[in-house]
Amino acid sequence: METLIQPKVLKGFRDFLPQQEILRSDLIEKLTKTYRSYGFVPIDTPVLEYTEILLRKSNGETEKQVFRFEDNGGRDVAMRFDLTVPFARFTAEHKDELYFPFKRYHIAKVWRGEKPQAGRYREFVQCDFDTVGSDSASSDFDILSLMKSALNEIGVSKVTIRMNHRGIFNRFLAKIGASEKSEDVLRIVDKIAKVGSEEVKKELTEVLGNEESAGLILEYIVPEKDFDSTLSHIEKLAGGPAEDTQRMKDIYEMMKASGIENTYVLDPSITRGLDYYTGVVYETFLNDLPSIGSVCSGGRYDNLAGLYMKDKVPGVGASIGLDRLIAGLEQLGVTEAKGSYLDAEIYNLDSSLAIQYQKLASELRSKGVAVEVCPDAKKIGQQYAVTDKKGMTWGIIMSKEDSEKGTFILKNLKTREQTVDMNVEKAAAVILKK
Amino acid sequence: METLIQPKVLKGFRDFLPQQEILRSDLIEKLTKTYRSYGFVPIDTPVLEYTEILLRKSNGETEKQVFRFEDNGGRDVAMRFDLTVPFARFTAEHKDELYFPFKRYHIAKVWRGEKPQAGRYREFVQCDFDTVGSDSASSDFDILSLMKSALNEIGVSKVTIRMNHRGIFNRFLAKIGASEKSEDVLRIVDKIAKVGSEEVKKELTEVLGNEESAGLILEYIVPEKDFDSTLSHIEKLAGGPAEDTQRMKDIYEMMKASGIENTYVLDPSITRGLDYYTGVVYETFLNDLPSIGSVCSGGRYDNLAGLYMKDKVPGVGASIGLDRLIAGLEQLGVTEAKGSYLDAEIYNLDSSLAIQYQKLASELRSKGVAVEVCPDAKKIGQQYAVTDKKGMTWGIIMSKEDSEKGTFILKNLKTREQTVDMNVEKAAAVILKK
Repeated sequence: METLIQPKVLKGFRDFLPQQEILRSDLIEKLTKTYRSYGFVPIDTPVLEYTEILLRKSNGETEKQVFRFEDNGGRDVAMRFDLTVPFARFTAEHKDELYFPFKRYHIAKVWRGEKPQAGRYREFVQCDFDTVGSDSASSDFDILSLMKSALNEIGVSKVTIRMNHRGIFNRFLAKIGASEKSEDVLRIVDKIAKVGSEEVKKELTEVLGNEESAGLILEYIVPEKDFDSTLSHIEKLAGGPAEDTQRMKDIYEMMKASGIENTYVLDPSITRGLDYYTGVVYETFLNDLPSIGSVCSGGRYDNLAGLYMKDKVPGVGASIGLDRLIAGLEQLGVTEAKGSYLDAEIYNLDSSLAIQYQKLASELRSKGVAVEVCPDAKKIGQQYAVTDKKGMTWGIIMSKEDSEKGTFILKNLKTREQTVDMNVEKAAAVILKK
Repeated sequence: METLIQPKVLKGFRDFLPQQEILRSDLIEKLTKTYRSYGFVPIDTPVLEYTEILLRKSNGETEKQVFRFEDNGGRDVAMRFDLTVPFARFTAEHKDELYFPFKRYHIAKVWRGEKPQAGRYREFVQCDFDTVGSDSASSDFDILSLMKSALNEIGVSKVTIRMNHRGIFNRFLAKIGASEKSEDVLRIVDKIAKVGSEEVKKELTEVLGNEESAGLILEYIVPEKDFDSTLSHIEKLAGGPAEDTQRMKDIYEMMKASGIENTYVLDPSITRGLDYYTGVVYETFLNDLPSIGSVCSGGRYDNLAGLYMKDKVPGVGASIGLDRLIAGLEQLGVTEAKGSYLDAEIYNLDSSLAIQYQKLASELRSKGVAVEVCPDAKKIGQQYAVTDKKGMTWGIIMSKEDSEKGTFILKNLKTREQTVDMNVEKAAAVILKK
């Protein structure tokens, strides 16, 4: 006999059992429905790409994390580590087949060989949506509004979307003479929620070499009491009105007109660190669990596909980190664990009736009932134990006498109520509550 | 300026543009719905696994095709080349968390470094469904019935499912003294649709060393006029009734009771070659395009997870080759190319009305209308050109006067009919045909 192989998955990778996968599918289906209702369309790209395409612009951290190898044809290939770089390559490659503005969503796995830790995996799902080819307040607003709608659709209504504008911040940094250090400043300011303002001030002072500028930056990044007053405050500090502040006003007007403004906070400390954003940027926090960090982030960029084509394609988008979001929802206890998609189970009391059971199942399915037959005539207790785990409401019991009459017993498995002499029409009506 | 990188995908890999991806999503959603209505539940497994787990039982062909490498932690890993081996590993690893019979579906990408040719790709989608933990006619029938239902659901009604039983064939081979050569015989017989009976007879004669046995095998594999007479024929040649022929009779009775028997043909030449099947086996052909080969195949096996655990888990399942099926449907011209999921477009005639357009979009969405706003006030002709490609039926035109009155024009983009003085309630009712 051959030795058995220990069945196990790789470190940082996971199996999804039915309950977890049903939950994930439910969320993805609801997100998809919402994305579509805003006019976003799906695309797909390969999991493997030329390493040169994926890694050209990345920093050293990404390079260390990527799953990269030489394929059998001697090509240097890598598994995608996000959905943005492949989208940039896709846009450049197909620019003549697409129409602009182009609004795409892409929900798919990405891979990063990160050090596994709580809530961090090497294989995880991103849910991206972007509009490219328009630099308008309307397309900024589309993304921000869709973020809220998508999260609401999956039952997450208590969220705060914290937004900011990189352009205003850059004007302000120029004004105080800190432009040359802007990358460092963005990186330090981005950490304020984690490390606190004392530490940020200390690090800013070190980088800028003077405490006064550090103090000004701290003054800039602390929000005022509401959106309008924060906007006035940073507008003044940045040198007065300009296109960037007008953009924020237009977006906020659209939010008010749609009655959704309460979800959004203007927070000048949101910078998205060293990312490639140039306009509005945002992060989303669960009000009841801000500590897990942003569950949906993004912003506006002015040149998506610059590495692959000469034309500049501006765009705006966001990404929902599904795994972090699910971890958050599970911590909050708001996920509903479903064991199957079944409405009803036909119990197997007598294997000689298997043909009748299957006939009944096929008739019920033709009425729209999701139903299965227990394939083996096990003890009824064992059959009940399995249906308990599957969580359907209805059980169907058909004896030999029943089958000769063309009837069966319909049992509500939650209330234990039974109705005898049921037929397909009546049972389908009860099960589908018609 | 940096040099541009040529944007291109790897050989044998593909991008999916929105129309193609919408088609694929539509088919997957319909398949999923059907799988669920039979009580199958989803699982997921990692794309990367230990090479030892994936390749232990494979033949040399698979080994040459697999994408395999050493990860940064020095592990020998590979990308899955099917969904069956990961399912076997999954079943062994989680046997104490699952309940049996366990019915799972898994729709996901797999990778094989095959020589790219028409209809063959290195990255493709498989749609698997299996029941493990039951050796019953009822679970065989479930799979066969679901194959038909799933294909019907996606609009493929003209199909023939050709089925056979490995056990009966093995009894027959034993009877004629050809058991020792059974692997060769299965491999040769499997090619009959491709190479014809003359060539099969020639090869069988060579392998068996005598023409008489070859002649008997050819007699065995040619179907009679209908299911029952073919079954009688092979039953007699195999030595009379046994469990295997009774199984075929039970399955066929279930088909007749459900009124679906006309889709199934008992074809003793179907063997599934060298696969690990032990019971019923089947392949599915499009009646109008048999030449593309089987679009859904599978069968019963008696020991799914034998490499990873001591308990024997019998099972039965099938897999739809989605990419081959789509290629077939496209050849037959029965696919419908949809450009978006939108019901309506709000045209942008005046950028100063952007806030009103977005307000209207948000109100229409709250009524269930999928609608987007053109973000930029381009020429109306350009806006029409884009909506043409997206294929929605309704256009909304709102002038400054309209917006002051709270009304707009609803235009049927197919018939060119316009209705003035529309409001949200009325337009939603028309668009959603209530």
